[in-house]
Amino acid sequence: MLFRTDMADERRDVYRKANNLEEEINGIECETEELQDKIRVTRVKILDENGEQALNKKKGNYITIDVKKITNLSDEKQENIINIISKEIKNLLNLHVKEDEEVLVVGLGNGNLVADALGTKVVDNIEVTRHIKKYCPEYLAEDERAISAITPGVMGLTGIETIEVVKGIVDNIKPKLLIAIDSLASRSIERISKSIQISDTGIVPGGGVGNTQKGLTEESLGIPVIAIGIPTAVETAVIVNDALDIFIGKLQDEARSNEYLNKLKEEDNYNEIKEALIPQNYNLIVTPKEIDELADDMALLVSEGINMSL
Amino acid sequence: MLFRTDMADERRDVYRKANNLEEEINGIECETEELQDKIRVTRVKILDENGEQALNKKKGNYITIDVKKITNLSDEKQENIINIISKEIKNLLNLHVKEDEEVLVVGLGNGNLVADALGTKVVDNIEVTRHIKKYCPEYLAEDERAISAITPGVMGLTGIETIEVVKGIVDNIKPKLLIAIDSLASRSIERISKSIQISDTGIVPGGGVGNTQKGLTEESLGIPVIAIGIPTAVETAVIVNDALDIFIGKLQDEARSNEYLNKLKEEDNYNEIKEALIPQNYNLIVTPKEIDELADDMALLVSEGINMSL
Amino acid sequence: MLFRTDMADERRDVYRKANNLEEEINGIECETEELQDKIRVTRVKILDENGEQALNKKKGNYITIDVKKITNLSDEKQENIINIISKEIKNLLNLHVKEDEEVLVVGLGNGNLVADALGTKVVDNIEVTRHIKKYCPEYLAEDERAISAITPGVMGLTGIETIEVVKGIVDNIKPKLLIAIDSLASRSIERISKSIQISDTGIVPGGGVGNTQKGLTEESLGIPVIAIGIPTAVETAVIVNDALDIFIGKLQDEARSNEYLNKLKEEDNYNEIKEALIPQNYNLIVTPKEIDELADDMALLVSEGINMSL
Amino acid sequence: MLFRTDMADERRDVYRKANNLEEEINGIECETEELQDKIRVTRVKILDENGEQALNKKKGNYITIDVKKITNLSDEKQENIINIISKEIKNLLNLHVKEDEEVLVVGLGNGNLVADALGTKVVDNIEVTRHIKKYCPEYLAEDERAISAITPGVMGLTGIETIEVVKGIVDNIKPKLLIAIDSLASRSIERISKSIQISDTGIVPGGGVGNTQKGLTEESLGIPVIAIGIPTAVETAVIVNDALDIFIGKLQDEARSNEYLNKLKEEDNYNEIKEALIPQNYNLIVTPKEIDELADDMALLVSEGINMSL
Repeated sequence: MLFRTDMADERRDVYRKANNLEEEINGIECETEELQDKIRVTRVKILDENGEQALNKKKGNYITIDVKKITNLSDEKQENIINIISKEIKNLLNLHVKEDEEVLVVGLGNGNLVADALGTKVVDNIEVTRHIKKYCPEYLAEDERAISAITPGVMGLTGIETIEVVKGIVDNIKPKLLIAIDSLASRSIERISKSIQISDTGIVPGGGVGNTQKGLTEESLGIPVIAIGIPTAVETAVIVNDALDIFIGKLQDEARSNEYLNKLKEEDNYNEIKEALIPQNYNLIVTPKEIDELADDMALLVSEGINMSL
Repeated sequence: MLFRTDMADERRDVYRKANNLEEEINGIECETEELQDKIRVTRVKILDENGEQALNKKKGNYITIDVKKITNLSDEKQENIINIISKEIKNLLNLHVKEDEEVLVVGLGNGNLVADALGTKVVDNIEVTRHIKKYCPEYLAEDERAISAITPGVMGLTGIETIEVVKGIVDNIKPKLLIAIDSLASRSIERISKSIQISDTGIVPGGGVGNTQKGLTEESLGIPVIAIGIPTAVETAVIVNDALDIFIGKLQDEARSNEYLNKLKEEDNYNEIKEALIPQNYNLIVTPKEIDELADDMALLVSEGINMSL
Repeated sequence: MLFRTDMADERRDVYRKANNLEEEINGIECETEELQDKIRVTRVKILDENGEQALNKKKGNYITIDVKKITNLSDEKQENIINIISKEIKNLLNLHVKEDEEVLVVGLGNGNLVADALGTKVVDNIEVTRHIKKYCPEYLAEDERAISAITPGVMGLTGIETIEVVKGIVDNIKPKLLIAIDSLASRSIERISKSIQISDTGIVPGGGVGNTQKGLTEESLGIPVIAIGIPTAVETAVIVNDALDIFIGKLQDEARSNEYLNKLKEEDNYNEIKEALIPQNYNLIVTPKEIDELADDMALLVSEGINMSL
Repeated sequence: MLFRTDMADERRDVYRKANNLEEEINGIECETEELQDKIRVTRVKILDENGEQALNKKKGNYITIDVKKITNLSDEKQENIINIISKEIKNLLNLHVKEDEEVLVVGLGNGNLVADALGTKVVDNIEVTRHIKKYCPEYLAEDERAISAITPGVMGLTGIETIEVVKGIVDNIKPKLLIAIDSLASRSIERISKSIQISDTGIVPGGGVGNTQKGLTEESLGIPVIAIGIPTAVETAVIVNDALDIFIGKLQDEARSNEYLNKLKEEDNYNEIKEALIPQNYNLIVTPKEIDELADDMALLVSEGINMSL
């Protein structure tokens, strides 16, 4: 199944729609909480192998925080969002490490590309303490956590796979938990730079369950990995697909469809149209023109949320 | 007619297709030249009011240079592109000013947004001479042109319309010609950061013929304006539109369309679908993920082309 | 007299020391206020021609705010500094314009050089309203002030003198007052990026009283000019000079000086040493290694202070 | 001995002057070559423990390339400099690895501070091949070297010592040689961003011979380390010191010195003056105002030199 999204709650929606499910997917639990300032928290839990196969994501917790507005916030509203992010991260942290155990924060992605820079932007603002704890422990409370933070770069610029860089450092400095921040693909334009997914299952680029080699996961690194992802773009193919689905849907509503079209929609099979529209070798995304500023605003909220949770 | 592109040659295509024209549009001339390294130069000339109304652009010359590849070029290929750009600019310059007359280069757009930064990037690399000519003329050849360059910013950040800033400076320093560089919208993904449109008709934001108030044009500024535009994005609505057109086209080819669909396509009337897909208040664009690097490469070529032509 | 500083209070100190004055300089008033968080406000008032000649600065108010610490401030301390800056600017504003009269903010300097970027950094954060007041007045309170903001660049990059750019825009959009922000030279390393000078006499590059042509002043622009300056560097010659003065001073204290040295110190005449040390054609400055970060912190405080005052 | 410089040839000068040596230092060899375009290459070789102790640097080769002009170079002159840099790096490479053995390039320093950003700027422009050799070897010549490149950041921002990051990655990906690029302190203002030191002894922050723990050296990493350093600043204390030395020197020349001053100069003992001038907790540097642009120009030359040598 082609989800074209990294967000667990969107995959759940796609799966249920594709299979015409009214009830919950077997092996999945999901709950939604509406908070003040129109903030929504969605908690998807993948319970077993059945859930893993349905969503093609690993067993564990996936929490999504959706924020309607992130620019020009009052101090108060900003604090509210940071608190919510912090609380959700803290809940996952407490499942995996003690209060004073060392954490390494990793900002993934290419800091030179605006659509891929969120990881490095967040890390720029993380308050590190590991060196103080090591060399000047008198400046920290005794039970304060050692925190370090790196940006490993991307393979196209370093020649090294991210996992190779991170594994080398993890093996050498031995933190007890990793927090990895990355840009994600979403299916929803409204979520770009306005949604945060927090999970405790690591990051598997490409997202496959079987593909455990290259991801930043407990299997590959030997320590638990909390992944924080922020959608920065929607694939152009998603927009084309959705347009055609809505189009046929409307024809159906108006009884102007025909058998051929109905079948086409069922099969989600618009590849020829996408090929005609989207030149090969292009990595095309749909993004707001103001993504640069939205990303700055979001990076501040997430980094402060992480700082507070640690 | 909704062109959804700032490129004169694309408007010509759209107009001819919409009107099922085989021959040239009345009031338009067009020629295409294929050069080495797969570089194509298209020259659209709008001759009269009829041409103006057809393309909703002002009378004058519109030259488009399409380059297949702009990254990782050899020095030689890079020089070739710069030479071609320079020659086309020079041709237009010679129509309007003498070799030693003063030119002001203006980089439009918001330098903080990657999809809008091309104007300011180009200006950063312009070799200015006006202050040398004024204060240390002994360092310049006697007939060398005075060149100055500014980035007026965008109204959302300055509170001032671009024309107000530029008119104030033009009235005060009195150059004989303006070169304005701006980011453009194209209908073609393959042209993003790989195409340059050079015209001698000024820049009219929104592109309407009647709308002469706000544009940077000879009417508003009192001096000729050469506009250099580079496509940095395609409107998302264009992608949706084209997808639906291709879709119905395919149904028609396969004799699976019906009267209703045929009419729909004729009318280019997919607004409901676009509204369902694209949230209002969003300024959504389709762009390559690597637009940051493509824009840097393109800005270098264009600025060197301008420097050489001056 | 060579002051080697743009700060009025430092010039007053230099003048009094050079002339062994115990009492106040004729034509000058000065008062100092110590506020909480070790913030000091110094108010130098140049009353007449005598004061002008002593300090080689124009008649008017020069307020300096010194802040001990500007990085990693608590929200509360940050707010305190912003309030103080805002209050001082507001006092000067009220001397020259009404509450609802239009103001243009101008960020001077070269945004690409860290030691010269403060003006442009501050302007990036100014809340402009002029375009809203002009096109959507319903979104502003009726008596709200129109505010605009520009960065005219530097002559080396634009080919145009700053005054030419600013005068053109002022003549065209007709604000009632200008606020100009610039980087300054100080004599004190401790003031780098930690001090703000606010004056209502405009900015005269080079600082001479007679030199009224090129400055941004009421004379040249026709409207009052509030200048906000922040020291970002100390000239290397100042360090050399001060080192030699302290050195001879110490010799004198220890009765190891001689007539020759005493005379040398009197005359402040170390040019040969400076020539031997400092290569010509170099624009050398002494600056903290962390000037990039200090400048960001300071720009935020000043821009918020301006926003609040307007 | 306090050298206040990281450049081996400057240390040699300081040592010889301090010890009034006419002949070469025991355990040191030095030769100088003058090339076209006023480029000078100085080769200091530390032969044994005696040389190590004299210069407080490790045994090995230290080559310094001095370039008079690095901005606005013609293509030809630029190529000439790149060739010279490349040749010197290649000579050292050939002493330690075979033509096809893997190399890791490491850009040290804080990319956010202009005076410390040269390492990261150079790495941004390194052509990496390791991932191609690993995953698409068909795109590389068979004997082409695998090259990778990282920027480990600084401890103040990561919480991790540079050696810990680099050692982790080296142990994991096992290159055969490391090239480390860093900003250096020089004693000469004229060398700022115009000189390159290339050595095969690694980088020992603080430069001590005994201090082998924390440096990036063959001892700590297990592979040879070529260090490429570029001066970006002079310590302010050096300027003060040199000013006082020149001052007393002049007094001596004019027979106006006295025994006390002569002794003072001998002992290089101006600490009180430096303390009075330079506030503690300040990391003050002397640097050209245009260091941002000089650093960009230099980074390009060095990165191209490295690319060509590899």
